[in-house]
Amino acid sequence: MTVATTTFHVRYAETDAMGIVHHAAYIVWFEEGRSHFMRQINFPYSQVERMGYYFTVVEVKARYHQPARYDELIRVETRIGELRSRGLTFVYHVRRAADNALLVEGFSKHVCIRHDGQVQRIPPELWERLRPHVMSS
Amino acid sequence: MTVATTTFHVRYAETDAMGIVHHAAYIVWFEEGRSHFMRQINFPYSQVERMGYYFTVVEVKARYHQPARYDELIRVETRIGELRSRGLTFVYHVRRAADNALLVEGFSKHVCIRHDGQVQRIPPELWERLRPHVMSS
Amino acid sequence: MTVATTTFHVRYAETDAMGIVHHAAYIVWFEEGRSHFMRQINFPYSQVERMGYYFTVVEVKARYHQPARYDELIRVETRIGELRSRGLTFVYHVRRAADNALLVEGFSKHVCIRHDGQVQRIPPELWERLRPHVMSS
Amino acid sequence: MTVATTTFHVRYAETDAMGIVHHAAYIVWFEEGRSHFMRQINFPYSQVERMGYYFTVVEVKARYHQPARYDELIRVETRIGELRSRGLTFVYHVRRAADNALLVEGFSKHVCIRHDGQVQRIPPELWERLRPHVMSS
Repeated sequence: MTVATTTFHVRYAETDAMGIVHHAAYIVWFEEGRSHFMRQINFPYSQVERMGYYFTVVEVKARYHQPARYDELIRVETRIGELRSRGLTFVYHVRRAADNALLVEGFSKHVCIRHDGQVQRIPPELWERLRPHVMSS
Repeated sequence: MTVATTTFHVRYAETDAMGIVHHAAYIVWFEEGRSHFMRQINFPYSQVERMGYYFTVVEVKARYHQPARYDELIRVETRIGELRSRGLTFVYHVRRAADNALLVEGFSKHVCIRHDGQVQRIPPELWERLRPHVMSS
Repeated sequence: MTVATTTFHVRYAETDAMGIVHHAAYIVWFEEGRSHFMRQINFPYSQVERMGYYFTVVEVKARYHQPARYDELIRVETRIGELRSRGLTFVYHVRRAADNALLVEGFSKHVCIRHDGQVQRIPPELWERLRPHVMSS
Repeated sequence: MTVATTTFHVRYAETDAMGIVHHAAYIVWFEEGRSHFMRQINFPYSQVERMGYYFTVVEVKARYHQPARYDELIRVETRIGELRSRGLTFVYHVRRAADNALLVEGFSKHVCIRHDGQVQRIPPELWERLRPHVMSS
């Protein structure tokens, strides 16, 4: 697996007065995309936290192509864009499931920290689990 | 079908600094519960809106029993509690899927309006679709 | 002071596809109302948490009268409805500042707990600070 | 005025299980920053919409330096980074008011559209109002 794909319906609360999904909702969907990625490699992020580590967000970017609307079935495709000793980047493509149209694309950069905020190496057992899924360039 | 059941994972964005799901997130889950209910009876709420009607919320109540946590699989059970000519009440039970524990229960009362805010009778084709699913008392 | 009043503008993200404020946003505004209340009595809730206590939410209710819209100035009035040894109830009135119209009213019930979830008495120094502000019946 | 500055307290709902403000909340704060900017130049965005125009979001980026926490007073500084005939870019600096620390910086790119999604020139009366506030390079 290089791409983890999760689907869900647009919630009404995620829409705004333009009648479309609010742009901040996609940032939450990105996060759900990487949560799903971690579940798919059998290393759920909740387990990362139980080990005392966090993937804190240091950067996020999104480009908006087409709007999603209430009740549409959405597909979020999540990949690892880059894996380094102390951090990683997830890359996202949000599509409308009905016609596969690309709605939004983006990425999030993360640094591995302990709860005190100190930057750490990604623990080896996790790093080994992530490595096979890095996109080949 | 009297109960529509939908499942999803807790999103990280739905947690708060207590380490548990924020209490307002359940109100959004209630809404997703009734969206799912409408999809299950083949009358999605997006179709209600395309017909020019809205089920505006006039009251909502929630009782919180146990907290949900990030990544847990959640099950929302949605029923119609009451169906009247100009409105209806949905009843919700939010459970942790792993052990079926009741986390939160609540209801939302809705009135059928047109976009101008005028109260309307629920259109007959929708009312007939809803009626068989009303909880027997 | 019996009533703590806070004002803010409706954020675009708080609206939904009906063109009005989403009903779950008011639950967040209630919370901001009680945060403001606690700041006004010089016992901010952040201090309560630093002491190791939480006012966990056990019940919330809202009745919706009129919708708020993007950019409107909102006023939230927060009172203590009931104060008991191990919990309290906040009561809220959300108004449109321009004409004082009542938009939404509601309450939230809280129980005082420690982080392990054990119910506790409200610590005396906090209880004494809250008591003068309880609504007389 | 080149910089519009707005302040508010961190809401509890904006925190997450790491005990800090969730990264998507800053995207909403950016939006509140530009809402405030538009109010400051006496051309509130609600008026833009009443004229039939929207500044749809085509790109957003945020870099996270330090976390905000519940109840902290936040200051959002908003500038126009670029103004073009059919769109504009807002630039944001989110600071902790207590010590002026830079927490998050970012930008959002917008295109002017009508409700049908057609790209439009920014209407002249608005463009003239915006132009004096563009950052000099």
